[in-house]
Amino acid sequence: MKELAVKTLLERGITLPEIAEIVLDLQKPYIPHLTVEECLLSVERIVEKREVINAIITGVALDKLTEQGHIEEPLNTILKTDDGLYGIDEILALSIVNIYGTIGLTNFGYLDKTKPGIIAELNNKSNTQVNTFLDDIVCAIAAASASRIAHRDRDLAEAKELSQSS
Amino acid sequence: MKELAVKTLLERGITLPEIAEIVLDLQKPYIPHLTVEECLLSVERIVEKREVINAIITGVALDKLTEQGHIEEPLNTILKTDDGLYGIDEILALSIVNIYGTIGLTNFGYLDKTKPGIIAELNNKSNTQVNTFLDDIVCAIAAASASRIAHRDRDLAEAKELSQSS
Amino acid sequence: MKELAVKTLLERGITLPEIAEIVLDLQKPYIPHLTVEECLLSVERIVEKREVINAIITGVALDKLTEQGHIEEPLNTILKTDDGLYGIDEILALSIVNIYGTIGLTNFGYLDKTKPGIIAELNNKSNTQVNTFLDDIVCAIAAASASRIAHRDRDLAEAKELSQSS
Amino acid sequence: MKELAVKTLLERGITLPEIAEIVLDLQKPYIPHLTVEECLLSVERIVEKREVINAIITGVALDKLTEQGHIEEPLNTILKTDDGLYGIDEILALSIVNIYGTIGLTNFGYLDKTKPGIIAELNNKSNTQVNTFLDDIVCAIAAASASRIAHRDRDLAEAKELSQSS
Repeated sequence: MKELAVKTLLERGITLPEIAEIVLDLQKPYIPHLTVEECLLSVERIVEKREVINAIITGVALDKLTEQGHIEEPLNTILKTDDGLYGIDEILALSIVNIYGTIGLTNFGYLDKTKPGIIAELNNKSNTQVNTFLDDIVCAIAAASASRIAHRDRDLAEAKELSQSS
Repeated sequence: MKELAVKTLLERGITLPEIAEIVLDLQKPYIPHLTVEECLLSVERIVEKREVINAIITGVALDKLTEQGHIEEPLNTILKTDDGLYGIDEILALSIVNIYGTIGLTNFGYLDKTKPGIIAELNNKSNTQVNTFLDDIVCAIAAASASRIAHRDRDLAEAKELSQSS
Repeated sequence: MKELAVKTLLERGITLPEIAEIVLDLQKPYIPHLTVEECLLSVERIVEKREVINAIITGVALDKLTEQGHIEEPLNTILKTDDGLYGIDEILALSIVNIYGTIGLTNFGYLDKTKPGIIAELNNKSNTQVNTFLDDIVCAIAAASASRIAHRDRDLAEAKELSQSS
Repeated sequence: MKELAVKTLLERGITLPEIAEIVLDLQKPYIPHLTVEECLLSVERIVEKREVINAIITGVALDKLTEQGHIEEPLNTILKTDDGLYGIDEILALSIVNIYGTIGLTNFGYLDKTKPGIIAELNNKSNTQVNTFLDDIVCAIAAASASRIAHRDRDLAEAKELSQSS
């Protein structure tokens, strides 16, 4: 199943190392010794979860069906123009973010607003590819991966403290 | 836009009065004098909201595209069989429920589990129509309408109390 | 940290095996060979997560502070009477449910409405203990545990299928 | 009830016009003729909703009880230091954001990360006042107000278009 997520993202022009770079930018201020390899590992753990895979394949299906002209009006125009008042892409992304808890909400919103790196490219409306769902999905995977790293870093610190105190 | 929601539901076999009946069953124990007309009014207020309309047209689009054979595998099988581990239909419904606040979560879950009236018919898998999204959407509209009635009933009681105390 | 969650629940009269019984009732229809021991193991995995522990200790703190008379009006009366229009207990519970994905929403709402076993006792308003947050938290832990079991059962089935096909 | 929300925020050092300024900054790029008075009106509509009032009074109660030394450890330290892995403040805020739909998620996350104006002051940890919940609540009220304005601006445009076409 994980291969399905990776393949689906790749077909739409997104690689996991690109998402790992965003995660590194998010978490580096808090964990100075963090490497892009650790970030990539975290991204891989996120995209192997069933809930995440389902969000990816559903969102990308809607993007592709819009490109192929299979969506009726007025939804077709809403999806083609990535209408700012359409919130279904955000709610789909939320189901990814929530897997590692609500602390990811902040990073998700921040990425979705500032659109760093590949996210800006996805959101570039001159693009012929429809990425209405994909850009939010990529933000959500990055946010969830950052949350996972933050939680694990604390777990490690707590385990260390415990072993030193005993 | 509201007509779009009503028309989309009707094409899939759902009328607003049918949803109003579910709302009445939910709220009658708390508001004995509640009528089905008041419930219908509440359902109408829910389905005219942009967020709700977007959830309806997106969910129904996915149901119809599945029937028409436009969805690729493995999503096609997931949607055709209404796979219990697929949670995207629930998260779409959540965006409807939340409009009137988290008190609607309980009624949504209850309806989705017990499937009274038309919801059971929608969920009947022998049906040739795919209703994977539609059944959750109907539960969510009913839950949101019930929340709206509960909030308004309290508003009325508070206003009455205030006017009597002055 | 997990001990903190277990201890906090125990002080309020809830044991993990009691929650495991609710989980068994939820999942037995889908997994006939499921045992209460497996359910208990799943409950233990849920209550060791930081997000869940935080929800438990925050909700129980609010319940206890209400009992101790430290909450100002009108919040005091809202919490003491478990006001049906107060949805903060549900949203706190949602943060627990979401950890194992949106498929848990249905079970959460169903438990919160039907209040089986210990949940009914918690919700018994003649009780001198305030359980406004606790009852939703227990429903949420049970719902998340059931989701975890459902996901793992499928993982197992898929792994089996994969090994047989190779 | 609305007075309760306004009074609670004021006691913690927040006025509605300060929140309106944040809303103006968020929406000005999309609606050039938007005034701070219109933003204030929108903020007022948000803080009169029961769900929002409940989130405000619950969050502020937790902040104040922490200041007063009524919270037990380890929750006391978590709240006093506004621990980054504690997500209950975000989930409480989410219940405010959701009232005007998921399009508010982006603005909420952005504000919570960039902390413009009064939000930075609230989050200043040298402050003796505990604002762990308050800062997220203010971000959420601003995000919901911005969503409300965006929806209403579109409603107006659609109504205008409709009247011109007839």
